[in-house]
Amino acid sequence: MLLDGKAVAASIDSRTAQWGSILKELGVVPSLAIVSVGDNDKNGAYERSIIKKCEKIGVRTLRYKCPESLSGDQFKNLLGNIREDGCIVMRPLPSHLDKPEIYSCIRPDQDVDGITDASLAWVFTGRGVGFPPCTAQSCMELLSYYGMGLSGKRVSIIGRSLVVGKPLAVMMDRENATVTLCHSKTNNLEQICKESDIIVSAVGKPGFLPLDCFRDGQIVLDVGISYDNNGKICGDIDFAAIENRVAGITPVPGGIGAVTTSVLMSHVVEAAKKRVMKG
Amino acid sequence: MLLDGKAVAASIDSRTAQWGSILKELGVVPSLAIVSVGDNDKNGAYERSIIKKCEKIGVRTLRYKCPESLSGDQFKNLLGNIREDGCIVMRPLPSHLDKPEIYSCIRPDQDVDGITDASLAWVFTGRGVGFPPCTAQSCMELLSYYGMGLSGKRVSIIGRSLVVGKPLAVMMDRENATVTLCHSKTNNLEQICKESDIIVSAVGKPGFLPLDCFRDGQIVLDVGISYDNNGKICGDIDFAAIENRVAGITPVPGGIGAVTTSVLMSHVVEAAKKRVMKG
Repeated sequence: MLLDGKAVAASIDSRTAQWGSILKELGVVPSLAIVSVGDNDKNGAYERSIIKKCEKIGVRTLRYKCPESLSGDQFKNLLGNIREDGCIVMRPLPSHLDKPEIYSCIRPDQDVDGITDASLAWVFTGRGVGFPPCTAQSCMELLSYYGMGLSGKRVSIIGRSLVVGKPLAVMMDRENATVTLCHSKTNNLEQICKESDIIVSAVGKPGFLPLDCFRDGQIVLDVGISYDNNGKICGDIDFAAIENRVAGITPVPGGIGAVTTSVLMSHVVEAAKKRVMKG
Repeated sequence: MLLDGKAVAASIDSRTAQWGSILKELGVVPSLAIVSVGDNDKNGAYERSIIKKCEKIGVRTLRYKCPESLSGDQFKNLLGNIREDGCIVMRPLPSHLDKPEIYSCIRPDQDVDGITDASLAWVFTGRGVGFPPCTAQSCMELLSYYGMGLSGKRVSIIGRSLVVGKPLAVMMDRENATVTLCHSKTNNLEQICKESDIIVSAVGKPGFLPLDCFRDGQIVLDVGISYDNNGKICGDIDFAAIENRVAGITPVPGGIGAVTTSVLMSHVVEAAKKRVMKG
C-alpha cells in the first residue's frame, strides 16, 4: 500500500480549517512570522509552500527578510520581539547564526516548528510548553491517519537527530511502541530492521537502507530527502525495489514531506487557540 | 564476573576527594542541602548514607527538615532560597508536594540529583545546564570503570522512567550504543534482550526478567531495588540463576545502588568547582 502524504495533509488541513473558522467567528486570525536571513534558494521552495498553505487555511503571514550580515544580537532581538502566534525560522541559516542559543529567543508558545530546546524538553519530559518538531509529528499523523496503532509494535528509527530521530523515538515510546534508535555506529542494522514492524529512515542519503532490512508486512516511513545523481529528489530507500514487498511505504516526494506544512499550520492555529483561551 | 558497585564507588570517591582537596586549598568547602519533608523511614537510610559519604569526602551538609504540612508555595520558597552548591530533595514526598513544577524551583546548577526538567532537557539535547540523574550516571560509571565501551553495542533498557530508563537511553546513545527502550507493553522481550550485548533492568519487581532473556557473554546491570517475600532486598533479576551464564552482572545490593551516592558527591564537588570558576 502506498502511504499517501497528500491524503494525510488534506485530512489535517480540513481539521485545521475548521478551527480556523471558529477562531474567525471570534474575530481572531492566526498569524505566522516567517523569518529568513540572506538569500537561500533551498529555503525558497519550502517558504513558498508554507505561504501557499497559510493562504489556503486562512493564516496571516508576516515575512521578516533579514540581510545575510545580521548579527547574533540583532537576530535575538528580532526573535524576542515577534508578536505573531507562531514563528518559523527558515533554515539553513548562515553559519554565524545557526545556534540553539539564538533559537531559544523564540518563545516556546510561538515555537510552532518545534526547534527550541524548550520544545524538545517538552517532548522528552511531557511537561512544560512547546510543540513537537513538524517532521516527527508528521510521521505520527500518517500512522494515525492509516489507523496503524503503535502499542506493542517494534520500531526501528534510523537517524538520531534532534529534529527527527530522537524526538520521534520518545513520541512513539509514549504510544507504547518499543523503539530502537539506530545510527551510523549501529551493527546488524539489517537484522534490527528486519525484526521491526515499522521502519523510519531519517538519514538523508539516497538509497541508504540495504534491501535486506525489509520483509513482508512491514510499514516503512522514508523521511530522508536528498537528490540522486540525476538531480531528482529521492529518499533513503529504493522505493521501486521494495514497494511490492512491504505492507505500506511512503514515497518521496509525496510522503512525510507532504505532511509537514500541514502540521505546521495545525500548530499555528493551536497557538492562536491558546492565545484566545488565555483571554 | 561480578560487577562490584563498591569498587566503582571507591574509584569515583578517590577522584572526587582529590578535587575536594584542591578546592579546600582554595578555601572552598563544597556544600549540599538535604531537604526532607515529614517523617519517612524509607528516606532515612538513604539520607544517612548521603551524610556519611559527605563526611568522608569533606562536603558540608545542611539539613532542611520540613513538617509534613508544608505547602507547595512554602516548599518552592524554600527551594528558591537554598544557597548551597547542591540540593537534593529526599523522595518520596507527600503526594501534595510531589510535582515537577515544584522541583523546577531548584536551580539547574544546584540540581545535583538530576531531577529537574532543566537537567532532563540538558541530558536530552546536550545543551544548557544540569546534571544527569544519579542512577543513570551510575550505570555509565560502572561500565566505564570496567572498560566496557558502548560504541556499536546493542543495549536493551527495560523500564522507561524519567529517572533512569529514558535519560540512560539518551546517554548510551550518545556513546554510540544502539539502544532499545523496553517496557510493560513490549512484545518479545526475551528475544530483544537475548540479542543485546548489554541489558539494563530498571523495573523494580523481584525476579521480573525471564531467564530466557539471557545468554553467554552479556553484561547485565540490575537497577531494580525491591524487597522479596522475606523482606530481603533484591533486584529485577534472579542473580543466582544467571550469574554463571553471563559475562558480567551487578548484584543487588552492592551493584548500581552502591554507586549512586558517590555520583551525587561528584556532582556536588562539580557544582562547587563551577562556582569557583565563575569567580
